[in-house]
Amino acid sequence: MEHIKALVCVNCGHKHEVDIIYECKLCGHSLDVEYDYEMIFSEEKKLFKDEWPGIWKYRKLLPVTGTTAPVSLGEGRTPFLEGETLAEKLGVSTVFLKNEAGNPTLSFKDRPLSVALTLAKERGIDKVVTASTGNTGVAAAAYAARAGIMCEICVPETTPQEKLTMMEVFGAEIKAVEGTFSDAYDIAKRVALEQGWLNLTSTFLNPYAIEGDKTLAYEIYEQYGEVPDHIIIPIGAGPLLVGCYKGFQELKKAGMIENLPKMVGVQAEACAPIAKAFEQGEEKVGPWKVKEKTVAGGIADPLTSYPDDGTRTLETIRESGGVAIAVSDDEIMRGLSLLAESEGIFVEPSSSTAIAALRKMVDGGGMDSDESVVCVCTGHGLKDASALKQGRK
Amino acid sequence: MEHIKALVCVNCGHKHEVDIIYECKLCGHSLDVEYDYEMIFSEEKKLFKDEWPGIWKYRKLLPVTGTTAPVSLGEGRTPFLEGETLAEKLGVSTVFLKNEAGNPTLSFKDRPLSVALTLAKERGIDKVVTASTGNTGVAAAAYAARAGIMCEICVPETTPQEKLTMMEVFGAEIKAVEGTFSDAYDIAKRVALEQGWLNLTSTFLNPYAIEGDKTLAYEIYEQYGEVPDHIIIPIGAGPLLVGCYKGFQELKKAGMIENLPKMVGVQAEACAPIAKAFEQGEEKVGPWKVKEKTVAGGIADPLTSYPDDGTRTLETIRESGGVAIAVSDDEIMRGLSLLAESEGIFVEPSSSTAIAALRKMVDGGGMDSDESVVCVCTGHGLKDASALKQGRK
Repeated sequence: MEHIKALVCVNCGHKHEVDIIYECKLCGHSLDVEYDYEMIFSEEKKLFKDEWPGIWKYRKLLPVTGTTAPVSLGEGRTPFLEGETLAEKLGVSTVFLKNEAGNPTLSFKDRPLSVALTLAKERGIDKVVTASTGNTGVAAAAYAARAGIMCEICVPETTPQEKLTMMEVFGAEIKAVEGTFSDAYDIAKRVALEQGWLNLTSTFLNPYAIEGDKTLAYEIYEQYGEVPDHIIIPIGAGPLLVGCYKGFQELKKAGMIENLPKMVGVQAEACAPIAKAFEQGEEKVGPWKVKEKTVAGGIADPLTSYPDDGTRTLETIRESGGVAIAVSDDEIMRGLSLLAESEGIFVEPSSSTAIAALRKMVDGGGMDSDESVVCVCTGHGLKDASALKQGRK
Repeated sequence: MEHIKALVCVNCGHKHEVDIIYECKLCGHSLDVEYDYEMIFSEEKKLFKDEWPGIWKYRKLLPVTGTTAPVSLGEGRTPFLEGETLAEKLGVSTVFLKNEAGNPTLSFKDRPLSVALTLAKERGIDKVVTASTGNTGVAAAAYAARAGIMCEICVPETTPQEKLTMMEVFGAEIKAVEGTFSDAYDIAKRVALEQGWLNLTSTFLNPYAIEGDKTLAYEIYEQYGEVPDHIIIPIGAGPLLVGCYKGFQELKKAGMIENLPKMVGVQAEACAPIAKAFEQGEEKVGPWKVKEKTVAGGIADPLTSYPDDGTRTLETIRESGGVAIAVSDDEIMRGLSLLAESEGIFVEPSSSTAIAALRKMVDGGGMDSDESVVCVCTGHGLKDASALKQGRK
């Protein structure tokens, strides 16, 4: 992959050769793919290729060679909709909804997993493993099936039945783990190292997978035609938020845009390590002690054994001039109903945190009513329909 | 709507003025929208407009004025994928999958319902009603919410909980009806007439809604680049199959293609009025006496009070040189697993009938191994996940 220079440690800056590694060999922190932008942007051909479908339009900025056919199910190019009724009800002039539930396995995770499985195919890898609260597992199972690669998924016991059903039907092996996502994370990490399988866990562990998240930025830019003032994204560890911001930074490097958006990260109050650190002005995110459950299971990540991932996201939020916000389960469920009834879009509770956060920002003066905002609807409501009943009780 | 000439009775040919009517005033049969093709095709501008998203690219051939903004959730432009592993396992050279689960409410019904609600908005209609086995109801509820129009849905008691949950969350009123879809059909029809609400029932009752189904043909043509030999479509009454064929006929009228595809309609053995009439060489389809349930609830339509709708579909199948096929619940569930494990695509049992039918055609000599075939995956597996457990028992 000659368009990639190195894997750079986000902490100490050490540069590693391009290889299948998951953390800095010196300090153990997460890695970031560094491209040869000079080479990529200087090529005469167009940066984005309309003739390739979905996210593969942006292949020049993805960590694949480009010689293998992508492992694709038609991911990306999800609907970008103006929510006029929603805006009116919230008291803002405009709000846009980027509906990632329109992806093949009904969540944004199809972006990083399509990239990761394409990489696996290029490298001749025959088995992959991932930890997941559900959405990553479903996407991993589907793309592994499409690629003809075996797939094992470590999930917390609390994973919704709908998501387990999908993993099963795609033929993946499922390992239910006692405890939280962080426990599943540790087991997947150990198994991957012991067995030599590719680890797809979509925190910041796999530096290649999260590059797929950048395509969200390119699409928002292309569909909106400019850069929104705020982008609100539900976050566990936060790779989608960080990836999306990197995408905008790349557009700026390419001279296509001038300003960057403010990145807003949302967490559920019951599991909000990043929002807490932001509110308290901390430099680093600490692990969260789980005391209660939340309806937003997809983003309930206490970061137990990898709080530095939260710090990476916190730093991105601050760099962008954005905020991190925690919302209650009640606010989340009200956001879900409001979005469905106003706009005909049904998301899972983890996603409607974005609507709840927008309401808080408007009410609390965190944004002007004439600023533009995009709420990212990360996953489909049917993937967590049981939470709907739970939240309505 | 000056690009539309009349609503023509498919039985007696009587031409009615363009208005909200549901059946021929002379003989009671279903109606077909007749366009002024000469005018449409003679316009200098391009027939398909890339600058409009999804199905609205084809607006010139849809029954709307074009002055109202469409009621859109990003429907259409669904993935068109080659299934190499699936083809290998079935013993054919190529098979393509048109994945309609990629629509906003996870089924092809978003095409006709987006058209129908746009029409409702244009006409200032404030309430709509529909009968549904689930998918139409979900789409109607979502698009009605988006349009700010009230929606009532008559469903058979056996409708899967997943689909009911979606209708509820969009704020629709749900009326559970004892009996089959045909019973729900009668009630919706009566309510619509009595109350003056627009009836969206997606048999052939609403002549405008089914025009949205044509866009499936335009997309297959554009994504494949040519006309496939066979298109396999799961059918209840069959508007998708008939609409899709009409779309190809229009492409031929426009001089864009030379040949038409053979249309293959698939039903479940437990409810197969059209397949039975085809196999027995009958001219007309008769109502089906329901004796047993099927996992393919989405297409289990006995056509009790409107068997002529089945005849319209039967005639289209014969005209195209295609066949109607019935498949067993076992074959349907094997098709579902085969598709999920081979290609990473999870459909509901009603949709995997298409895979089961393809297998039957190949095994029974109904197609040559070098002919091209498109299986239409009509709806997402998560919308009927309970059937998965039922079918696996």
